[in-house]
Amino acid sequence: MANIDYWHEVAQQLRVDSIRSTTAAASGHPTSSMSGADLMAVLMSAYLRYDFANPKAPNNDHLIFSKGHAAPLLYAMYKAAGAISDAEMLTLRQFGSRIEGHPVPVLPYVDVATGSLGQGLPIGVGVALAGKYLDKLPYHVWVVLGDSEMAEGSIWEAFELAGHYQLDHLVGILDMNRLGQRGETMLGWNGDAYAARARAFGWHAIEIDGHDLGAINDAYAKAEQNTGAPTLIVAKTVKGKGFAEVENQPGWHGKPFPADMAQRAIAGLGGERNLIVQVQKPDDRQPAPRPDAQPFKAPTYEPGTSVATRTAYGDGLKALGAARPEVVALDGEVSNSTYAEYFAKAYPERFFEQYIAEQQLVGSAVGLQVRGYVPFASTFAAFFSRAYDFIRMAAISRANLKLSGSHAGVSIGEDGPSQMALEDLAMMRAVHGSVVLYPSDPNQTARLLNEMATHRGIAYIRTTREKTPVLYGADETFSIGGSRVVRQSDGDKVTVVGAGITLHEALKAYDQLKGEGIAIRVIDAYSVKPIDTATLHAAAQATGGRIVVVEDHWVEGGLGDAVLAAFAGDEARAASGPLPTVTKLGVHEMPGSGKPDELLDAAGISARHIVAAVKALL
Amino acid sequence: MANIDYWHEVAQQLRVDSIRSTTAAASGHPTSSMSGADLMAVLMSAYLRYDFANPKAPNNDHLIFSKGHAAPLLYAMYKAAGAISDAEMLTLRQFGSRIEGHPVPVLPYVDVATGSLGQGLPIGVGVALAGKYLDKLPYHVWVVLGDSEMAEGSIWEAFELAGHYQLDHLVGILDMNRLGQRGETMLGWNGDAYAARARAFGWHAIEIDGHDLGAINDAYAKAEQNTGAPTLIVAKTVKGKGFAEVENQPGWHGKPFPADMAQRAIAGLGGERNLIVQVQKPDDRQPAPRPDAQPFKAPTYEPGTSVATRTAYGDGLKALGAARPEVVALDGEVSNSTYAEYFAKAYPERFFEQYIAEQQLVGSAVGLQVRGYVPFASTFAAFFSRAYDFIRMAAISRANLKLSGSHAGVSIGEDGPSQMALEDLAMMRAVHGSVVLYPSDPNQTARLLNEMATHRGIAYIRTTREKTPVLYGADETFSIGGSRVVRQSDGDKVTVVGAGITLHEALKAYDQLKGEGIAIRVIDAYSVKPIDTATLHAAAQATGGRIVVVEDHWVEGGLGDAVLAAFAGDEARAASGPLPTVTKLGVHEMPGSGKPDELLDAAGISARHIVAAVKALL
Repeated sequence: MANIDYWHEVAQQLRVDSIRSTTAAASGHPTSSMSGADLMAVLMSAYLRYDFANPKAPNNDHLIFSKGHAAPLLYAMYKAAGAISDAEMLTLRQFGSRIEGHPVPVLPYVDVATGSLGQGLPIGVGVALAGKYLDKLPYHVWVVLGDSEMAEGSIWEAFELAGHYQLDHLVGILDMNRLGQRGETMLGWNGDAYAARARAFGWHAIEIDGHDLGAINDAYAKAEQNTGAPTLIVAKTVKGKGFAEVENQPGWHGKPFPADMAQRAIAGLGGERNLIVQVQKPDDRQPAPRPDAQPFKAPTYEPGTSVATRTAYGDGLKALGAARPEVVALDGEVSNSTYAEYFAKAYPERFFEQYIAEQQLVGSAVGLQVRGYVPFASTFAAFFSRAYDFIRMAAISRANLKLSGSHAGVSIGEDGPSQMALEDLAMMRAVHGSVVLYPSDPNQTARLLNEMATHRGIAYIRTTREKTPVLYGADETFSIGGSRVVRQSDGDKVTVVGAGITLHEALKAYDQLKGEGIAIRVIDAYSVKPIDTATLHAAAQATGGRIVVVEDHWVEGGLGDAVLAAFAGDEARAASGPLPTVTKLGVHEMPGSGKPDELLDAAGISARHIVAAVKALL
Repeated sequence: MANIDYWHEVAQQLRVDSIRSTTAAASGHPTSSMSGADLMAVLMSAYLRYDFANPKAPNNDHLIFSKGHAAPLLYAMYKAAGAISDAEMLTLRQFGSRIEGHPVPVLPYVDVATGSLGQGLPIGVGVALAGKYLDKLPYHVWVVLGDSEMAEGSIWEAFELAGHYQLDHLVGILDMNRLGQRGETMLGWNGDAYAARARAFGWHAIEIDGHDLGAINDAYAKAEQNTGAPTLIVAKTVKGKGFAEVENQPGWHGKPFPADMAQRAIAGLGGERNLIVQVQKPDDRQPAPRPDAQPFKAPTYEPGTSVATRTAYGDGLKALGAARPEVVALDGEVSNSTYAEYFAKAYPERFFEQYIAEQQLVGSAVGLQVRGYVPFASTFAAFFSRAYDFIRMAAISRANLKLSGSHAGVSIGEDGPSQMALEDLAMMRAVHGSVVLYPSDPNQTARLLNEMATHRGIAYIRTTREKTPVLYGADETFSIGGSRVVRQSDGDKVTVVGAGITLHEALKAYDQLKGEGIAIRVIDAYSVKPIDTATLHAAAQATGGRIVVVEDHWVEGGLGDAVLAAFAGDEARAASGPLPTVTKLGVHEMPGSGKPDELLDAAGISARHIVAAVKALL
């Protein structure tokens, strides 16, 4: 009983502080925080093992608020743990504060950004994969779920993969408060339905009253004892619990209480408290030892042969695996097309099959990087569009994430447009801080993979299905932000910029134009973002300000737009003058099936069209 | 028995033809077609009701191959139905053929493009919603599912919504052949697991041997009799069934048989056949009558007041509902933020709540437009990134789809970056044939909604959370591809291009610069795609080739890139004379929480920054 009384006091403090911070901010989600307060009071008092003085301690538990809008509750917990001050907690949602409207890892106790619903659990699966299969540490991953977000398909991807990988140290805590933003959720208080779904996906499920502190305690104890499967605790709760005026009432989602209401609520909850909960520290254990890092030995390809860059991705990833023990790989059930299977066969213990579940593919990768691994996640480039929200959020998580998309553009041929990535460059350029690479050659691909592994942040590499001639020697170097001038002479009349498959078309155009006495400069813009502004400027100047850009991508948002933007000014850089004369060749019409050459030509991005565009500029 | 024998012959023909077409194409998926042949033989012979002479007949059943890679089987069915010739079937995957690698609605019998797995069922849900709630016709929606795609979260969004809406005329046919592209699926032949999952999501489930023609017949009969819930038929099948050399063997996904193998296979299957199956026609019934269309009466807003464009979206959508009976609306459980709730309250029978399941939100919309409805689907603009693959595929489906994204940019304020759309313009520009609108004013928003409803294709409107001043009169007109010059004089020195919230910052900058004696031209580029090239060219010429573009979006892929692209290309140059010097202002750094004004300023897109950029150009 002593425990129960204490937990109750902690829970009331969490409620009071959730009200105080949101009323101070005049925005935020007090009622969604109040429903989960009892669950969190017991968790932090008796189960969570976390060293707040050392957020990077390897054996720390992980607490992820998948329902990120309950951030005031999370911040109240941090205050109760003594990790942040009351004063800082009250800076909620203020400009410049770490206490943002939704959790972000600007705070060292936050693993990943949440706030786009349905992402915390998939990421938690990734952390739990790290714990069970790589770190081999007994930490738990506690994921607080809202009931509205249980409608997200990504949640069920997480359920199926967690079941499949038997992640018994993963615990989902479903704060089933019945009310979503605009009314009742699909399932309301039908806890049996959630439990049945969880069980059908291979989980343990426990249904409790989420305000019964004893029952909460029992549920956590059972969850910790479960083996062989993750656990979902379905906790029936009341939105706004603890303040009768709002309890279980619609219309109180995302609304702070006005000052007078807040005063009544706090008084009814027993007033302000400043309890400090002694959160247990984890056992001081280290992750499973890794082999020593080795120098990267890139695979090599002989000029004169033809090799697809996707093949080089597979070879290069395997080489990275040998060099860097922190590199892990994931794939969306297409590893025999992306060639991630080369890594999977060489390092099966560091490869995680994610099946056809691209949101989980990225979610797992983000989870793995929480624990310091460097994840390379691959699928067809087109199918990363399935996970764009996860990639967007990964940028807010400041994640160290490597993505590889194969089968870019119309040049894949017969499979048709559903399998062709024609928007991936646009999509990936518009990710904060991203690197976007599109190599033209297998030696280059392998070298760039090592650059990706070294670079901290989100980096994307686009590979080509078809074999293309080897252009570069195995000893050449390539860098993020670089480019390569592959043909040049003093008399160049026009600059042609390509990347990937279109660079090879540009080289064919070069040969043809040379035969007609027209010299062009050809640039391999393998780093689409950042783009090599200096080289483009120099080439424009040398070729009379005439540029043709050619890409196997929709004309919007890809390489063409990146080249144009290199000639615009921005906040940091004044434009060097008027734009050059740029012709953008890209895909305008919906392609169908056909042979790669037929489709490149029909799309207007083959050598013939480059030749015509060059002549039109002269 | 006579039936069984006939169905067997049909099934063998479907197998033989799947082999013939893929061997002729030298690519494609024969084994994935052969596993489903018995299921399809019985379906087309005894259950499907479809008038191939009249693919638009309102009471036709709908057959959707969610496993789009089994397209050879679908085409074999079309041949067996007499809808296409054997010769056309054999043009599979050839350039210019309608018989593409994956189904596309270039063929009139195909409702929607498939091939990105996990989309056919969500779209089928939309068709079934139309059937049950709008058309009120007894047609069935048959969706053929692969087992690999059951891992997609979007499948479970479809399951939950179909259960919730009790879509008893929706039947999922799971061709559980155990083998995915690179090996065994997550669940292999564990049919009980699929059935348990389906039941937990509110479906009937029937497990059968998918090669037992009598059992297949019984299952369809039961599915047709089921009421109150959709049905999943879990059919255990063998990949490559009918050709012992490949049956249940790995390594045969997406691989045609070489000529000698094909010959052996066809011989073993009893050789070529040319049976014509008499597919039953549906009863000649018409959809529930709709009220007559009325002229659109836009809501009006008074200059001098301030109204958020998202509010105008709600008002305008309601007005569209009054004017156009074919307009329907859907929302992802945020209708009290997007203001789709105004429509929902006025026309509840035409509103479909999709909960927090954005893939299903778009999938349902695509399904509804299959039946001729004009769907407006809304959520926070950031969360459409969750459904990007569905939007991409909707373009391949040639869908008539309207999307509305609210809460654009940093100007939403306190909620922080997880809720801010900063990539939606880039994402939506890179959709084939899309229209992208970003109004600055509520009267304009309402008018543009009517333009969206009239336009056939994918159109996206981006709305702003914050109230902004009314700029335009209620009688002004706006068009797709248009723009509005809102400030101009003869002595303009610089053109400033904005849209949405930044147009208002540009107007503040105008006032400030005017006070300093610097005249600027201000353009409201409310149509981001297509962009008003002619007006931009004229403005550039009139203002000495100096342009500042300012947007509440990442600097990549949005309005800035659209303006730059207006000055690239042959046509653009022919019209424009000298090329301009362009400064792009957009969001460069990860925002946090704060007040809208603080965040606009911190992002470098407030009036102050526009003023500085203008001066830097002079």
